Amino acid sequence: MKPITIDTITQAVIDHGDGGKTHPRLYEIYTSLVSHLHAFVREVKLTESELQQGRDFLNQVSHHIEEIPTGEMHMLTDLLGISELVELLHDDQRGTEGNLEGPLYVLNASERQIGDRLGVDPEGDTLFLSGRVLELNGEPIAHALIDVWQPNSKGLYDIQDPSQPPGNFRGRFTTDASGKYAFETVVPMGYNVPASGPSGELLRLLGRHTWRAAHIHFKLSALEYTSLTTQIYIAGDPHLDSDTTFAVRSAIVELQKHEAPEKLQARNQSKPFYTTEFDFVLKSATLAETHKVTADYVYAGDSK
Amino acid sequence: MKPITIDTITQAVIDHGDGGKTHPRLYEIYTSLVSHLHAFVREVKLTESELQQGRDFLNQVSHHIEEIPTGEMHMLTDLLGISELVELLHDDQRGTEGNLEGPLYVLNASERQIGDRLGVDPEGDTLFLSGRVLELNGEPIAHALIDVWQPNSKGLYDIQDPSQPPGNFRGRFTTDASGKYAFETVVPMGYNVPASGPSGELLRLLGRHTWRAAHIHFKLSALEYTSLTTQIYIAGDPHLDSDTTFAVRSAIVELQKHEAPEKLQARNQSKPFYTTEFDFVLKSATLAETHKVTADYVYAGDSK
Repeated sequence: MKPITIDTITQAVIDHGDGGKTHPRLYEIYTSLVSHLHAFVREVKLTESELQQGRDFLNQVSHHIEEIPTGEMHMLTDLLGISELVELLHDDQRGTEGNLEGPLYVLNASERQIGDRLGVDPEGDTLFLSGRVLELNGEPIAHALIDVWQPNSKGLYDIQDPSQPPGNFRGRFTTDASGKYAFETVVPMGYNVPASGPSGELLRLLGRHTWRAAHIHFKLSALEYTSLTTQIYIAGDPHLDSDTTFAVRSAIVELQKHEAPEKLQARNQSKPFYTTEFDFVLKSATLAETHKVTADYVYAGDSK
Repeated sequence: MKPITIDTITQAVIDHGDGGKTHPRLYEIYTSLVSHLHAFVREVKLTESELQQGRDFLNQVSHHIEEIPTGEMHMLTDLLGISELVELLHDDQRGTEGNLEGPLYVLNASERQIGDRLGVDPEGDTLFLSGRVLELNGEPIAHALIDVWQPNSKGLYDIQDPSQPPGNFRGRFTTDASGKYAFETVVPMGYNVPASGPSGELLRLLGRHTWRAAHIHFKLSALEYTSLTTQIYIAGDPHLDSDTTFAVRSAIVELQKHEAPEKLQARNQSKPFYTTEFDFVLKSATLAETHKVTADYVYAGDSK
């Protein structure tokens, strides 16, 4: 190893090891990350006190479990645009665009039947959401699994809000033979991401707001198709252009409002309600990916 | 905000906020870090699964408290060469070079008198270490505080080793009127950094060894001088060229071995012992820094 100087230390770190012989992809990631982190430290001439603040910040993010029991690390990567950048880099422009899972997904939501209501929220505006799951060529995909989760009309998820019953506004549906899905829910409200921890403090110091535009989360899987995690957004939300996770792209739906008495009667509603449609398009899994997708499918099926 | 694409997302993140109006230095750091992290993600085309492994890794580093009670985050930055790079960037080549504090410093070590022995270790080789604390112009600095900590002859610090009494091989000395310090200790052994956690696993996967070259840690402070944290290394150690924290630079001391009977008798030793000398050179604090140094000094004094 050459003497350690400002000019040699980055290469010294990269060369300390087996050069990726045993784990080439890990080494590729490590080499790039070390190079960019060192370039950052040089660029801002980071001080020891600032480095210590950085270490403390990451530890605090990891240990702040009041709002998100697994810690804020996942949310932090969303707030820095890193998670969405990863989505964008792997979007091949075929099928429905993928989007962030976010930190509020819960495994094993209740299985529901087509047309079921997703949750309890007397103050919410009812929304009937329906559509189909299709192949790239437009053919329907039957027996696709659709896992849905969303906040209520106050912008809160069940796991953040003791006033909601567990599993409220979460559910798993299966498409019918024509690829159709449909359920009744409420119009979700946009919300501020959990901000009482270090990530929220960072946003405040940077003058960043904490709003997410109103959205509904989906995870779709079907045998022989690539799984899809995505979100659809509600047109007209004031934060579509400045969502704090940078995750709003093209999946935006317009809601139709219905208030005519005969419409209310037909849907058995006592106040105005909304409808909208969204079709999901899944890509065929390549042979290499089929195993993974099958495993997801079986896993989802097993977890009833 | 422009539509979010691979090409616009980095600027969108940087522009989401007040442009550094309230906290310009934080914004400078944030802008540079976000740019470099995004460049890294693009360069390796990071996948969602790899990003999740990264989040999990940082959480595990933060929560692995079996070996270092505060977690491994500090050690991780040392192992990536980031901590040493920060040292190098702020080294103005005047006075003794600074070096890493490392994660094993403990506040409020016992106060000791010049010549005292630093710890108990019947199997260790005794080392008499002495020298002076000087100004850049060679004048001695009296009443400088020297905080010393080191592993024993097996490479273990007291806080890692229940067989050592608390505070073993830690102590605080004050220089005399001629700037002199002196103490009796054992020749420290190089050691493997704590490696049972995620950071150790990373090094193994990269084929990196976990050795630190044998060293003794120092923190020095004196009224009107800039505080110094550094390490001195023992010549001949096999890992001087490949220390896993990249922290070995020029502060390397040669040990003199003494085994003649009259030498042993003069020092009251029953087996061969070693001596060496090292002079520390402190820089005057600028007016702006004086307050900080004074505060350190008072703090160290208060913590008896």
